[in-house]
Amino acid sequence: MSAIDELRERLGEIGDLSRAAALLAWDERTMMPPAGGEARSEQLATLAKVRHEMFCDDEVGRLLEAARAELPDADAEPGADVDADLVRVVSRDWEKARRVPSELRAEMARAESVGEQAWVEAKRASDYSLLLPHLERNVELARRYADCYEGFENFSHPYDPLLDEYEPEMSTERMRSLLGELRDGLVPLVEQAAAADSGAQDGAPGDGRRRSGSAEDCLRGEFPIEDQRELVAELIGEMPFPEGGWRLDPTEHPFAITIGQGDVRLTTRYERGNLGMALFSAMHEAGHGLYESGQDPALARTPLCKPRSLGLHESQSRLWENWVARGAPFLERLLPRLRDRFAAGFGDVTAAQLLRDANRIERSLIRIEADEVTYNLHILIRFELELMIFDDGSGGGLELKDLPEAWNARYRDYLGLDVPDDARGVLQDVHWSGGAFGYFPTYSLGNVIAGQLWLAAEREIGDLGERIAAGDLAALGEWLREHVHRHGRRLSPAQILERAGCGELSVEPLLDHLRAKAAAAD
Amino acid sequence: MSAIDELRERLGEIGDLSRAAALLAWDERTMMPPAGGEARSEQLATLAKVRHEMFCDDEVGRLLEAARAELPDADAEPGADVDADLVRVVSRDWEKARRVPSELRAEMARAESVGEQAWVEAKRASDYSLLLPHLERNVELARRYADCYEGFENFSHPYDPLLDEYEPEMSTERMRSLLGELRDGLVPLVEQAAAADSGAQDGAPGDGRRRSGSAEDCLRGEFPIEDQRELVAELIGEMPFPEGGWRLDPTEHPFAITIGQGDVRLTTRYERGNLGMALFSAMHEAGHGLYESGQDPALARTPLCKPRSLGLHESQSRLWENWVARGAPFLERLLPRLRDRFAAGFGDVTAAQLLRDANRIERSLIRIEADEVTYNLHILIRFELELMIFDDGSGGGLELKDLPEAWNARYRDYLGLDVPDDARGVLQDVHWSGGAFGYFPTYSLGNVIAGQLWLAAEREIGDLGERIAAGDLAALGEWLREHVHRHGRRLSPAQILERAGCGELSVEPLLDHLRAKAAAAD
Repeated sequence: MSAIDELRERLGEIGDLSRAAALLAWDERTMMPPAGGEARSEQLATLAKVRHEMFCDDEVGRLLEAARAELPDADAEPGADVDADLVRVVSRDWEKARRVPSELRAEMARAESVGEQAWVEAKRASDYSLLLPHLERNVELARRYADCYEGFENFSHPYDPLLDEYEPEMSTERMRSLLGELRDGLVPLVEQAAAADSGAQDGAPGDGRRRSGSAEDCLRGEFPIEDQRELVAELIGEMPFPEGGWRLDPTEHPFAITIGQGDVRLTTRYERGNLGMALFSAMHEAGHGLYESGQDPALARTPLCKPRSLGLHESQSRLWENWVARGAPFLERLLPRLRDRFAAGFGDVTAAQLLRDANRIERSLIRIEADEVTYNLHILIRFELELMIFDDGSGGGLELKDLPEAWNARYRDYLGLDVPDDARGVLQDVHWSGGAFGYFPTYSLGNVIAGQLWLAAEREIGDLGERIAAGDLAALGEWLREHVHRHGRRLSPAQILERAGCGELSVEPLLDHLRAKAAAAD
Repeated sequence: MSAIDELRERLGEIGDLSRAAALLAWDERTMMPPAGGEARSEQLATLAKVRHEMFCDDEVGRLLEAARAELPDADAEPGADVDADLVRVVSRDWEKARRVPSELRAEMARAESVGEQAWVEAKRASDYSLLLPHLERNVELARRYADCYEGFENFSHPYDPLLDEYEPEMSTERMRSLLGELRDGLVPLVEQAAAADSGAQDGAPGDGRRRSGSAEDCLRGEFPIEDQRELVAELIGEMPFPEGGWRLDPTEHPFAITIGQGDVRLTTRYERGNLGMALFSAMHEAGHGLYESGQDPALARTPLCKPRSLGLHESQSRLWENWVARGAPFLERLLPRLRDRFAAGFGDVTAAQLLRDANRIERSLIRIEADEVTYNLHILIRFELELMIFDDGSGGGLELKDLPEAWNARYRDYLGLDVPDDARGVLQDVHWSGGAFGYFPTYSLGNVIAGQLWLAAEREIGDLGERIAAGDLAALGEWLREHVHRHGRRLSPAQILERAGCGELSVEPLLDHLRAKAAAAD
C-alpha cells in the first residue's frame, strides 16, 4: 500500500468520525428528546477527542512526509493534482491541530454542546445570567486555544487564530479594513432609510422595528405552518440537488450540515405570522447545502471534500437567498403559487408589491430577520464586540458581564433601536454559546463575495434572469458548482475568486446592489 | 486517579462511540435520505473498528487487572458492589473481544449496513437474488467470527458464539431443548385452531391468512395514519417513561434503541388497513424502551448500563404487548378512545369483541403480525434454519441459495400455508440481512420469560389487573424496574429471574397463558 493510500484511508476514518459528530449535532438541534442533552455533550466531547488524537498522531506526520516524497511534483500548482493538494492542505491542518492538546479539544466540544443547551433555556427565559457562566467558560477555552498558536505563521492578533478556524488566510486587520469599507458605504444608505422612516413610520412601537415603505406587508399575516412546510419543500425540491440526497426539518436556529456524500440536512424555522422567515431561511440554507454537496466526487472521503471557508460558504447562501429568492424573476414565478396556497393573503398582491415587501429596508433587532442593507450593521456590532472581548490589552477590553450593556448601546448608536430584552438582544444568536468566536464577520464577507460571484455568473451565463424567471435554477447551480463547489479545499478562497473571474475581494459589487435596493425602496 | 476511575473513563468513551453508532443506525432507518446509504456504511464500519480497537487495547487489560486488585472483595456476590460487577462483566467482554480482529469487526459492521440497505430493495422487489450475495457475505463473516472462539469457555457448537452475543450463558443445546418443550406444548393448540379454521374459514385466499373466529375484525378497516399516530403517541405518553426522554418515529421494521441516558428512540409502523400493527408494535417497542431506560443511575456511562440479554429484553416488550395491551383491562380502557377517534369503525364494538379481535388466532405468513399462539412457530422455523446453516457438518446443512425453498417447505409443514412470494416469505425480516444470526430464538425465550415475570408481578402487586384498568401502568413499570431493569448487566439472566421470584426457566406459565387464549378463541 502506498503512503498516499494509507494516508487517505486514515483520513477517511477520521472524516467518518467527523461525520458521525455532524449527525449528533444535527440530531441535537432537530430531533433529540430534551432529557438526552447531558449524554449528548459527553458523546460529542469523546468524538472530538478521539478524532483529534487520531489526526495528531505522529504516524500521520510520517505518512504525510512519505506521501509528499511519492508525489511526482510536490510543488504542483493548487488544483493541478489531487494528491499534491491533499498533502499540502492536510499538512497545514496537521501542524495546526498538533498545537492543541486533545483534552482542550474535548473540553471545547463539551462546552459547545452544554453552552448551546443553556442558550436555549436562557433565550426562552430572556435571562442573560443563565448563559453568562457558559460564555465565560467558552471565552476562557477560546483564549487557551488562541494561546496554542503563539508564533504560528503570521498570526499577530489573539483574534487571528479564531478567525483562521473559519476563514483561512484572512487576518484580523484585513477583515477590519474590509468591514470598515463596507460600513462607510452603508452609513449613507441607512441614514437615507431612517429619513424615509421618519416620514412613513408604521411599525408597532413594541416590536423594535422601524419600517420604510407602505403599511401593508404581504409576507406578514396568518400562514398555516403545514402550508409553509409544503411550499418550502416544493421550492427546495426544485433546486439543483442530487436526487434523494437531502432532507429538510424545522429547528430553532436554521442551519445546514452534511452527514456524508448524498446526505445533506437542511433546516428552517416556521413562524405563523411571517412567511418570509421560512421562505428565505430555507433558500439560504439550501444555498449552503448545494455548496456542501457539490464537490468533485474524486475528493470523496478526503478532507478536501468540504467548502473552502465560511466566507465562501455564506456567499452561496446569500446568493440564493438575496440575489435569487428576493429578485424579481424568482418572485414573479413564486407569486401564483403563493396565491394558490394562501389565497386570502395574496389575492390582490402584485408582483411589484411582493418584490417591495421581500426587500423592505427596516431597521430591526434581530439579525436573521434583517434586510440586506442593515444586515451588515448587525455583523459589525458583533465583530466589534468580539474584538473587544479578545483584545490583547492594547485598548478597549470588555468583561462578559457587561456584554448586554455594550450590545444595547451599539444597537442604539448604529440602528437607533432600544433593545427591550436580552432575548431580542445579546441572546438572539447561538454562536457565542457554542464557542464560535470569529464566525460572525464571515457573514458579511459572504455578502461581499456573493456580490462578486453574482456579477461574474451574470456576465458568463448571459440570460440568468430569464432562466430564473422560467424556473431554471440549474444554470446558476451549474456555474457555482463549476467555479466554486467542485474545488472543495483544493484552492484558497482568493484563488477560487480569481479563477471565477471575480478578481480581488471588493465591497463595490455588494454596495452597488444595496444602493439599488435602497433607491427602489424610496 | 485510581485504576477503577481510569477504567471507567475509558469505558465511558468507548460507550460514547457505541451510542454515536446507535444514532447512526437509528437515523439510517428513520431519517436518512436514500442517497446517503453508502457513506453511512463506511461511518458505521469506522466507528465499530475504532471502538473495537480502543476496547481491545492491552491497556484495558492492565487497567482491569489493576482495578481488580483495588477491589475490597473481588469475589463479591454479583449485585453487591458495582465496581466488582464492572470488573467481572468487562473482563469477560474483553476476553471475548480480543479474539476478534478489528478488521473483521469493521467488515461485519459494514456488511450489516450494506446488507440492510440491500434488504429494503430486495423485499420491495420480492427478489431473493438481490439479497443472496449479501447473505452469503454475512454468513461467511459470521463463520469467521464463530471461528474466533474455538476453545472458549464451554462453547461446543458453532452456533454457540453467535447465540452468546445475544443471550449470554445460553447454549445451543439448552435453547434447542427449551424450544422443543415449547413446540410440544404448542402443537395441540395449533391443531385445535386449525380445526376451528376448517369450520369458520373466512380469510381471503390470496393473503395466506387462516382465521378462527367470526368474520368481522374491528382492528381491520380504514384508519387514517395521522389518527393512528396521535393515538399511539398518547398511549406511549401514558407509559412510565422519564419526562422528555423519548421520541417515536415511523419506520419499516419497528425497533427501539437508546442513544444515551434520557434519550430512548421508539419506532413503529403504520398500516392504513390494520390498526393493530401500529398499536401493538408501539406497545412492544415501548416495553423495550422502558428496559433500555430503567437502569440504576449509578451505572450510567458504564457497560453495565444496558439490558442483560435479548431474552430478557424481549420479555419486556412481550409483557407490554401481549400481557398488558392485549389483556381485557387495558382494552376496556382503550375502547372509548377508539370510539372517539375512529367513530365509524368502533361505534358498535363491545369490549368482548375488541378483546377477541386483539387475540385472534390465525395462522399467517408474517412473523410480526402473528398471534401469540402461532408466533413461536415462526421462531422455531427460523431457529431450525439457522442451525442448518451453521451446522458443523454433523448432519443437515443448508446452502443459502436453497433457503427460500426450505423456508416455504416449513411454512407448509408447520403452519399449513403456501408462501406466495419471498417478500412474504424469507425476505420478511431484516435480521439475517444485517448479519444477526442467533437472534431469533431469543424472541421465543422472551415469551417464556414474560410468562414467568407476569406471574411473579401479579402475585406481588396483587391488584395488577385493576390498576391497569384504571390507567395505572406505573405499578407494573415500577415492579419491572426494581426486579429487572435497574440491575443492568450486574446479574446474569438466571440470577435476575431467580431474585424476581421466577425460579428456573420454565415454559409452563407461557403455555398456560396460551392455552387460556386458545380456549377463549374457540
